[in-house]
Amino acid sequence: MNRGKFITLEGGEGVGKSTNLDFIRRSLERQGMSVVVTREPGGTELAEKIRQLLLDNNTESITPTAELLMMFAARSQHIAHVIEPALQQGRWVLCDRFTDATFAYQGGGRGMDLQVIEWLERCVQGDLRPDLTLLLDAPVEIGLRRVRQRGDFDRFEQEKSDFFERVRQSYLRQAQLYPSRFEVIDASQALDQVQQAVAVALSALI
Amino acid sequence: MNRGKFITLEGGEGVGKSTNLDFIRRSLERQGMSVVVTREPGGTELAEKIRQLLLDNNTESITPTAELLMMFAARSQHIAHVIEPALQQGRWVLCDRFTDATFAYQGGGRGMDLQVIEWLERCVQGDLRPDLTLLLDAPVEIGLRRVRQRGDFDRFEQEKSDFFERVRQSYLRQAQLYPSRFEVIDASQALDQVQQAVAVALSALI
Repeated sequence: MNRGKFITLEGGEGVGKSTNLDFIRRSLERQGMSVVVTREPGGTELAEKIRQLLLDNNTESITPTAELLMMFAARSQHIAHVIEPALQQGRWVLCDRFTDATFAYQGGGRGMDLQVIEWLERCVQGDLRPDLTLLLDAPVEIGLRRVRQRGDFDRFEQEKSDFFERVRQSYLRQAQLYPSRFEVIDASQALDQVQQAVAVALSALI
Repeated sequence: MNRGKFITLEGGEGVGKSTNLDFIRRSLERQGMSVVVTREPGGTELAEKIRQLLLDNNTESITPTAELLMMFAARSQHIAHVIEPALQQGRWVLCDRFTDATFAYQGGGRGMDLQVIEWLERCVQGDLRPDLTLLLDAPVEIGLRRVRQRGDFDRFEQEKSDFFERVRQSYLRQAQLYPSRFEVIDASQALDQVQQAVAVALSALI
């Protein structure tokens, strides 16, 4: 059986990931793929518990190092129990955020050493990398305006806008480093234009 | 103000850590030290939540890598919020297990690469190492007999005896590597002999 493909969807706050995730799933299913939709941090029972610890507004501040290690611990569970078994069964895995988000949020946002993140990436993932990464990119202010309309912010969403600016720039840096798997999509366009760009990127993979 | 001292108590299952922990605390307090007694994994609110995830008999198996990263995530919280502040205030920190346990359980027991553990040790702890490590050592069967009498085993206590034999050998290896901070105490002796040996080791530090 052919190994499935691994697609990740990335982007800062309020760029429209959820809407597009659903669009991608339906597009793939229409073409006969069996699709597993999942997310990070999370995707397994234990990884979702770690996610909760990470997103809660704790009384205890979380060190950048602890945050980074918890992200990769959750990722190890996710790969072992969900992503890798699905790919081996020929299913397509569509993941809302993956390691590029760690480079963006813990690297760019929190200032963790990128070499430390790269080391953990090799340690936890071995050779596993996405086949396609769709980066929904929009100016920070546009995304934050949407998030603020939703209300009720988690620990990350409470950060200041220069944090999100660093996140955005780190995402764009990742896209420059790995152009063969990245597709940067202008998420400030109208939704149908965004989806047209997503569809073009998907058809290249299929 | 003088920096406090950092004492760790190590050993496999059923070697009498709890009993001796209390004895050490009282010995130090009698000599006028302000003592913080804590434990790993754990020691802060978040680290204790991570401990719970690690010790529970989950329906989902935990990868050795995730286990290792969760240990060090909890350790990062513990150092930042408990150990380092206490030492800086001149208090003595007495910790039930620390990184030597990671080398023993995740390294020896689970077979994780020791260089990976060393790398994480440097990343999370910087230069922080215990001033004194008391290793309570006893043949595996003696300790396991005591644990089995207690009943109700956590995820680690359910391991087989060859796992604990590897844990014991790894502890002894750590003691050989770092003889200046390690004191190996024969925990198969009568309790008063064990405590006498503990007292000698403490007096050398004071």
